[in-house]
Amino acid sequence: MPSPTPELEISRDQFVWEFSPNMTPVATVQPGAVIRVETNDCFHGQVTSEAITADIIDLSMVNAATGPIAVEGAEPGDSLLVELIEINPGTQGAAMIIEGWGQLIDQVKAPVTRIFRVEDGVVHMNDRVSFPTRPMVGVIGVATESETLANFHAGMHGGNLDNSLHGPGATVMLPVRQSGAMLAIGDMHASMGDGEISGTGVEIGGDVLIRVNVLKKQQTRWPVTQLADSWFTHGVTTGDLQEAIRLACEEAARLLVDQWGFTMEDAFIFLSVAGDVGIAQSCHPCPGSVIARCSVPKIAACPTPFKELASR
Amino acid sequence: MPSPTPELEISRDQFVWEFSPNMTPVATVQPGAVIRVETNDCFHGQVTSEAITADIIDLSMVNAATGPIAVEGAEPGDSLLVELIEINPGTQGAAMIIEGWGQLIDQVKAPVTRIFRVEDGVVHMNDRVSFPTRPMVGVIGVATESETLANFHAGMHGGNLDNSLHGPGATVMLPVRQSGAMLAIGDMHASMGDGEISGTGVEIGGDVLIRVNVLKKQQTRWPVTQLADSWFTHGVTTGDLQEAIRLACEEAARLLVDQWGFTMEDAFIFLSVAGDVGIAQSCHPCPGSVIARCSVPKIAACPTPFKELASR
Repeated sequence: MPSPTPELEISRDQFVWEFSPNMTPVATVQPGAVIRVETNDCFHGQVTSEAITADIIDLSMVNAATGPIAVEGAEPGDSLLVELIEINPGTQGAAMIIEGWGQLIDQVKAPVTRIFRVEDGVVHMNDRVSFPTRPMVGVIGVATESETLANFHAGMHGGNLDNSLHGPGATVMLPVRQSGAMLAIGDMHASMGDGEISGTGVEIGGDVLIRVNVLKKQQTRWPVTQLADSWFTHGVTTGDLQEAIRLACEEAARLLVDQWGFTMEDAFIFLSVAGDVGIAQSCHPCPGSVIARCSVPKIAACPTPFKELASR
Repeated sequence: MPSPTPELEISRDQFVWEFSPNMTPVATVQPGAVIRVETNDCFHGQVTSEAITADIIDLSMVNAATGPIAVEGAEPGDSLLVELIEINPGTQGAAMIIEGWGQLIDQVKAPVTRIFRVEDGVVHMNDRVSFPTRPMVGVIGVATESETLANFHAGMHGGNLDNSLHGPGATVMLPVRQSGAMLAIGDMHASMGDGEISGTGVEIGGDVLIRVNVLKKQQTRWPVTQLADSWFTHGVTTGDLQEAIRLACEEAARLLVDQWGFTMEDAFIFLSVAGDVGIAQSCHPCPGSVIARCSVPKIAACPTPFKELASR
């Protein structure tokens, strides 16, 4: 199936460094709009060779998110639906070992930068190591309720969710807090492992083809993502991974109770036997957010959740 | 491809409750042997209806593991290779909410038992909720180096690894500590979600068809599992999930350095961009082990690890 033609392109020089409660849009679209969004790599073009390491770049300039885009009719209490149709990485990416970051930091010398070539769906690390791309976006979010959060962080507004499942085919539901929602997207990875243990994936610029829609008067507490065969909830904390898991499980149980009509007891048991707790971001130690997820498999015999979402 | 015919069957009345340094085998086989192992459900037949809840059963009688089986020629310093060829659950399973256990325990009344019917590869929870089986074994282990560990726990010897990927097609590598290795297997689940947040999957008896082999003079620190497209390492602690993740990442990096010839820096970066940190067991709060895993994708351009394993 050919990709739909975008009615709008947002260039990568229109971006924000943070999400806040009162954002000013660079464009306004109708629900159903297809948009091509150019994104900057997370280092904002600072890392062009392996000689450029984390200690000599400005690490406050990370995760520029292209936008914000206002969607007509998205009001507080609604959800913004962002369908990721295509994610097209560029041809050169970078990953890093950053002093003090990550599970293996005590076993290496830091800093280190590695440049990756990306071509025809393959990431080339060096002459003998290459692997398929798994393109995804790390940052996807909307205006916050009250805080101002740099794009380095994640929260109920989305932001730096760093979920490897945010690739082509995923639809991300974000709780609208400001009229228009104010969507912004960035931090593409040609590939990122679950957990992103050094704090970096194959960081790369590119473009993303999306379709936006509004789900009226329905909202989840945390961002929720729909895939072909399952839903994924998120839970975010500033460092406690077990608490992030608890939050993601709580959101998953809420879906089962509110949308599928489960009792809380049956939701708990169902998630234990059929839901998958997973890790989006757990680089540790690291000053960033810790992000867990929990899957809710779609079940043919149950009513369709978010009826308007399904029928769009 | 038809399954190979087992040369030996071990019945479910030959079992152990714990792994220790000096185990007495119920049978001895040659490397390459195919064996059918009958397993008890984790509650040892105590839970036959929804009226039988966790408070009225003996929770010290859990996770009986069938065996131990001695494998000729397996000596300390070697690895035992256990290929899971078939995992055949029975027809009725049970899951539970246990007082004080799991991420959602504060939102439910406990105890609760649910009985599941399992038929033709489908788990039926009730009239409207059913889902495909994902058969796997929770307990797979060998004699320990020095401790005696009840089958409720996991460790370097394996034990209650509760890894949902230990299903048909997986080959589990376990570090041999006692001559003959002393393999025992139990705690089958017709389905278990990653994390197993209530502490129970669809707990069920059944039988497992395995092939055992010995990898001479090669050993990993923690159990390592081979799937068709990746390896998985494990990290286990008594409660600290971040430390379990660190241990699993360390083992994954060791594979890349020792078997693929990576530098430690490249291993760290490769795992961050292409390895997946995951959760096997993270029921919390819970007195059991916390188990993380980390994947190492197979890469065509790299030398084959564990050469003897690949050529068996």
